[in-house]
Formats: sequence, C-alpha cells, structure tokens
Amino acid sequence: MSDKKQLIQPRTLKGFRDFPPALAMPREQMIDAAKAVFRSYGFAPIDTPALEYSEILTGKGGEESDKQMYRFTDHGGRDVALRFDLTVPFARFSAQHAQQLGLPFKRYHVGPVWRGENTQQGRYREFYQCDFDTIGTDSNASDIETALIIHDILAALGFERFKIHVNNRKILSGLLETLGLSEQATPVLRALDKLAKIGADKVAAEMASAGLSDAQAAHILQAVQTEGSNRAVLDQLSQQLSASERAMEGVADLRQLVDAFEAAHIPEGRLRVDVSVARGLDYYTGTVYETLLDDLPGIGSICSGGRYDNLAALYTKQHLPGVGASLGLDRLLAAMEELGLIAQTNTPAQLFIVQFTPDALGSYIALSRRLRAAGFATEVSAEAKGMGKQLKYADRKGFRFALIGGPDELERGVWQVKDLRGEGNPEIAEDDLVEHLRSMF
Amino acid sequence: MSDKKQLIQPRTLKGFRDFPPALAMPREQMIDAAKAVFRSYGFAPIDTPALEYSEILTGKGGEESDKQMYRFTDHGGRDVALRFDLTVPFARFSAQHAQQLGLPFKRYHVGPVWRGENTQQGRYREFYQCDFDTIGTDSNASDIETALIIHDILAALGFERFKIHVNNRKILSGLLETLGLSEQATPVLRALDKLAKIGADKVAAEMASAGLSDAQAAHILQAVQTEGSNRAVLDQLSQQLSASERAMEGVADLRQLVDAFEAAHIPEGRLRVDVSVARGLDYYTGTVYETLLDDLPGIGSICSGGRYDNLAALYTKQHLPGVGASLGLDRLLAAMEELGLIAQTNTPAQLFIVQFTPDALGSYIALSRRLRAAGFATEVSAEAKGMGKQLKYADRKGFRFALIGGPDELERGVWQVKDLRGEGNPEIAEDDLVEHLRSMF
Repeated sequence: MSDKKQLIQPRTLKGFRDFPPALAMPREQMIDAAKAVFRSYGFAPIDTPALEYSEILTGKGGEESDKQMYRFTDHGGRDVALRFDLTVPFARFSAQHAQQLGLPFKRYHVGPVWRGENTQQGRYREFYQCDFDTIGTDSNASDIETALIIHDILAALGFERFKIHVNNRKILSGLLETLGLSEQATPVLRALDKLAKIGADKVAAEMASAGLSDAQAAHILQAVQTEGSNRAVLDQLSQQLSASERAMEGVADLRQLVDAFEAAHIPEGRLRVDVSVARGLDYYTGTVYETLLDDLPGIGSICSGGRYDNLAALYTKQHLPGVGASLGLDRLLAAMEELGLIAQTNTPAQLFIVQFTPDALGSYIALSRRLRAAGFATEVSAEAKGMGKQLKYADRKGFRFALIGGPDELERGVWQVKDLRGEGNPEIAEDDLVEHLRSMF
Repeated sequence: MSDKKQLIQPRTLKGFRDFPPALAMPREQMIDAAKAVFRSYGFAPIDTPALEYSEILTGKGGEESDKQMYRFTDHGGRDVALRFDLTVPFARFSAQHAQQLGLPFKRYHVGPVWRGENTQQGRYREFYQCDFDTIGTDSNASDIETALIIHDILAALGFERFKIHVNNRKILSGLLETLGLSEQATPVLRALDKLAKIGADKVAAEMASAGLSDAQAAHILQAVQTEGSNRAVLDQLSQQLSASERAMEGVADLRQLVDAFEAAHIPEGRLRVDVSVARGLDYYTGTVYETLLDDLPGIGSICSGGRYDNLAALYTKQHLPGVGASLGLDRLLAAMEELGLIAQTNTPAQLFIVQFTPDALGSYIALSRRLRAAGFATEVSAEAKGMGKQLKYADRKGFRFALIGGPDELERGVWQVKDLRGEGNPEIAEDDLVEHLRSMF
C-alpha cells in the first residue's frame, strides 16, 4: 500500500571488491611506477580482451577446472570465458600478430583477471596481474634485463632491503642428469620448491617417495644449498657439475648475470644465486627468478618468473622462446603498507584552497592554476560553507596545507598557509607562495 | 594417424580487439595525461568490479535489452553481468560507501565496459570509459571545475582549437515553463539535441509532431540559436527569460562559469555558451557540457556530461547530487591520429644501444643506466647479431637514435650516435652524451 520505491541493496559479489581512493591510489601509483620502468627499457604496453573463446583459454586441456573459469554462452551462441591470467592471452596474441610485431618483442600488460576460486583463503575472484616478457630471442641479455627491471621497479617503489633469487633450470636439469634422475625431474623440482617452507628433511622425504635414494636426495640437497658469495657459489657449481654441458651453460648464464649487476653498480646483496629456486612449473627451461623482501620474508615472492622455450605452441608452429616475470601487486601493496611506504591519504592533492569569500572564486581558481602549473595538485573547496567545516573536510581527506584568503588578504595579495598536520599559519605573499611551498615538501 | 597436434586457431571474439603497442601506447599516454589532470584537481581514482549482480545493473528496469548486457549465472548460481558503463557501478559504490567517503567526493574511474551491441556500425563490444564526477554538492564551483578539467585535459593532449559548449538545463526548463510546455520537455529536448545534425526545419517538424504550435517551435528555436559573445548571449537570455526564476538561476550559473574562465586566462574561444545543447538524457538537471574540435566537428562531442540531481536513488535514500563528464577515448584517439598529435612508433624508448661486441654487454648496460637516469628510455639490443640486422630492428620499431660502441670506441670512451630518421653519425664522448642527446630532442 506504500508507494515508496523499494531500494536495491548496494553490494558486491563474493570475492569481488571495490577500491576506494585509499586503496586505489597506492595501487595506481605502484602500477605507474612499474610502467615507467618498463618503458624506460623499451617495453611497450599491449592490451587484450577480457573475454576470449573458451577453447583459447582451456587450451583444450582439463585446466578449466583448475582455473575455475567464468565461462558462459554469449548472445551469439559462442562458448566464451573471462581470462584467468595474462599469459594465455599473450600466447594467443603473439601467435596471431607475430608477423607484424617484429622480434624480439618486449611487452608489458597490466589488467584484471578472473577466477572463481575459493575465497576462504583470502583470495579474490578478480585481481590485477602485471606481466612483462621478451619473446623471440634466446639471448641471455634478455634474462639479465629481466632481473634488472625487477630490481629497478622495487627500488622505484622505495624498497631497499630485498633479494632477487636467481637460478637456472639447466643447472638443476644437469644435476639430475648426472645422477641419472632426469625422469624424476618434475616431482624433484616440486619438492625443492618447498625447501624454504618445509625444510630439508621433509624435502628429502618427498624425494624418497619419488623413488630417490637417500644418497641421491642428500646430494641434490647439498648442491642446492651451496652457500657463499654469488661467485663462490658459481665456482663450486662449476666444479661439481663440470660433467654436464647443460649445467655449465646455466652456470655461465648466471655468471654473466652476476657480472652485469656488478657493471650496473647494484649492491651485491640484492642479487642472490640460489640453486634451490625451482619454480615448480614445468614451463620454465632457463633462468628463474623469485624476489623476497628481507624484512618480510613470510609474504613470499613478490616478483617471479623465468625463461621458457616456446610460448605459443598451442596456437602456432612458430617457435617463440622468451623470458619474463610477473609482479605480485597484491603482495607488494600489502608489503608497502606494512613497511610504511604508502602515504595515508584519501586525496592525490597536497593543497586545499578554502572558499572564504564565495565572490572571490575567480581569485581562488586563478591561484589554483598557478600552483598546478608549478606542480602542486590543488583542490579549490567546492563549497563556501563555514571555514571550520572546510578545514575539517581538508583534514579528513589528508591534504597537507590549506590556503586561506579572505577579503583582507586578497587585497594585500597574501595567503595564509595553514599546516594541516602541525602548527603554523604564516602569511605569504602570493608571488613567494610557490617557493615557500617548495621548501615545505 | 598423424601425431602432429592440431593447433587452436588464434582469434578474438567478434567486436573485441587486441591493442598492439601502436594502439596501446597512445591510449595509455592519453589516459595518463587525463589522470594527471584529474589528480592535479584533487580527484582520486576508484575501481569497482567488472562483474556485478545483474539486479544492480538493470536497476530492475527493462534497460538490459538496451545495453545488451553480458549476463550469466556464475558457479554459485548468482545472476551476474559485466558492467555496461561506469555510472551505474559508481552509483552503487556511492550508496555502499557514502559514510566513509566524506562529501563532497571527487573521483575518476577509467576502465573497460562491455555491451553485446551490433558491431556493424563500427562499435566495439568492449571499450574503455573514462569518467570523472563530483558528488555530494550542489555548488556551481564544481560545475565550473568540471569545465576547467575538460579544458586542461584537451590542452594537455595537444589540442589547441576546440570549444566546450555549455548550457544549463534550467534555462531550457524555464523557457518551456514560460511557454506552458513543461509536459513536453522530453520530446522537445530530444529534438533539440539533433539541431546540429538535422537543422532547424527538421527540429521544428519534430516539435510539431510533439504537439507544439509553429509559433512555439519558432520561439524555442530562436532562443536556443541566440548568437554573439558569451556575455551577449547571457544578456539576451536574461532579458528574454526574466519571468522564469529557474531560467535566471541557470543564466547566473553560466555567467559565473564564463567569469571563471576569464579569471583563469583561458582563450575566450574555447568556451561557448550554447543554449541548443540539450543532452537528451532526462538525467541532467543543471549545467551540461559538449566538446567539439574546430577542425573535426564531424567526429562529434569528445567530452560530454552535466549536473544531475540524485546519483544513487535506486540504492539509497541519501540524496547525492553531482556533476561530471566522460571523455570519449576512442573518438579522442581517432582525432589525435587525424591531427598528427600521435607519434608513429612501436616503442616507448628513444635510444637503442647496439650490441656490437657481446663481451662488452656490461658496458652497454652501464651506459643504458646512465641514460635512463637522465630520463632517456633506452633499449639495449637483446641480440648480438649483425649490425645491419640490429639497426633494421631499431628503425622498424621507431627508435630515434642508435648508439654504437665497438672495441675501439669503448677504449676511447666515445659513442657513435646514429640518427635513425636522418643523416649524421657523430662521435660523442660518453661524458658529453647526455648533454648532446638533450640538444637533439
């Protein structure tokens, strides 16, 4: 009997989330910083559709159930699905456009992916991935560049204490070869991947159940746990594995990488040759990368990747080897928050101009343009309500300074510069304002 | 009988497209430029999920068929759909988080939306939208800011000859009120919207079929076609519509906008009070915006929007007035291409370092870091193949200069700087390189 309209409950789907400014701003800054590094190395952006033919994504295998694809039939009766990562679309893209791209091809791709995963472990069903790859070359120069980019992104984000752990699959393959264990590579690598988490004893036990003798397991565990400086580790591996040509190739590639980091004057502690890094995926064939934060090792690898032999075998006969890595945006964001690398604010602007005298809006706007031209993001108060209310808004949003000009100040050509996080309210001549503000940041 | 694996045909869905670097780079630059302007005004980013409950998107109306939503049932049996614009999710977001946001709230949102539309008219089924809005205030200062932002984005993108057409719905409403035609507002506004496209005669005919007399149609058409400077038009409207309080409010708001553009020293030709701008949507209630390029009027409005009374009435009882606009990214990109505002290149890097001597990779990497630190995006050749092949690659990708250092140059501490778009191959000492390159860009 009521004519009141019933409201629709505003809510998001389980496993999906909104990003209000306090979350969206640091994510955007992080992505922008990463993109700036990618571009500085000559990596170009690409984009691919969120929706693909399901057969493209499943690769006609049984992977669909693993990835919990969002799959449905579209208006035209097509079997379609939302992408669950950026690697498979990149493989499809590369096969489709390889002729026009020009090889080697270096691309980055940042975008959302979707998986109908169990949300109990804090997993989201929609999340961003940030991948970069070089395809169409076997050159170790690209493996080296990949590690340099990981380094430069973390440095750009403000991290100082981190280690890029590098290994080469050829070393592990060579080691298994010399032990006659090539057939058991997959379970052995899978066990090794857990070394940091479960310890040597449990890894040995897993190797035993994969059919290795105690001596074999001990030999492998000793080799991958070689300690010392990067050069010392490589020297030891050279001695131990001289019988395996493949392993020696891997050692030589890592040696070149260590040399390059030295030539680039990067602190030695940031790169660590770590033969225990296996990256369980069968996919990788050469260099592999994992990146750990010294202060937050428990968070896991924040940037991982490796070299692979053939990206797009499902879609083309063209052989496309490559190397790349993926930034763990959610982990990075959590780490930056925990390490205090994120400014707590709800606005990207530093300065807030109070509307003291509504008639003077033109003056406020003119000042705001002058400040923006000098590089200060500046908000003019939308409302001419009471000063207390305006300052409360500015404080709550996280502005750094409020600029106040009433009729008296405007006539004298000065502004009160109110520090919103401390004391102080000096009066500054408009012509000196930019210089004054520069000294405050 | 063949053991050859059958390939999956690499293809995209109809209406969907890949963005290779030549398309993705200018789009990314455009979006970055717009975001920088948004932030400089204190607008913060938000993000919302691609998938929503269908009822959120349909608003329980019959809009679904209009928007051709991608709608399906997810694993959990939920009726879900891909968002078809960013406005409805913003309304849902605002209703859900209004308490925490702090009003007024200024946000931008850039992201893909999906519509299963007919692709015959060159429409895509996945495209990016770029919206910005201020909600929670009736203040005309926000309407003014909206126009300033439109202006600054176009200027930042390199456009010089454009006009932001502004009107205020209150003027049209007041005009119809004075003529006793308030009931016919919707068909009249819809007809007016086509004025530029179909001309006054056909608009008059459409008004006639909506029940207007010839005199009424003529009166409206004369009023909306008032010509002259912005101030002259506003003066004339003040005289003609003095009987309507509502219309006079609209005139006053536009007058304040014209004043503000003058205070901001923006060339007068870039703002045009244009009473014929109706923006057919019933949604708008105050200022409305359309933006046309002087040199490409046929492309239509590249940035449109307006003030609305209540954003989220479907989801909350909280009254949320606002004002905002939407950048037409695809149109802008097409216009920038046509006007030569887009650099034709497949790489974001300017400099290409040839791998002349593979043993010198460390020197090439060290130089690349020096150049990047000076602000030059620099690619080190991935491959040490023949010089001709490397230069061909560099040329094809669109690099500006190639830096060549063989054993002789390296020993003397110099680099050949090869101009890839012209003549010249000077030899420059490494310590002078940054300065030399700065003079070349």
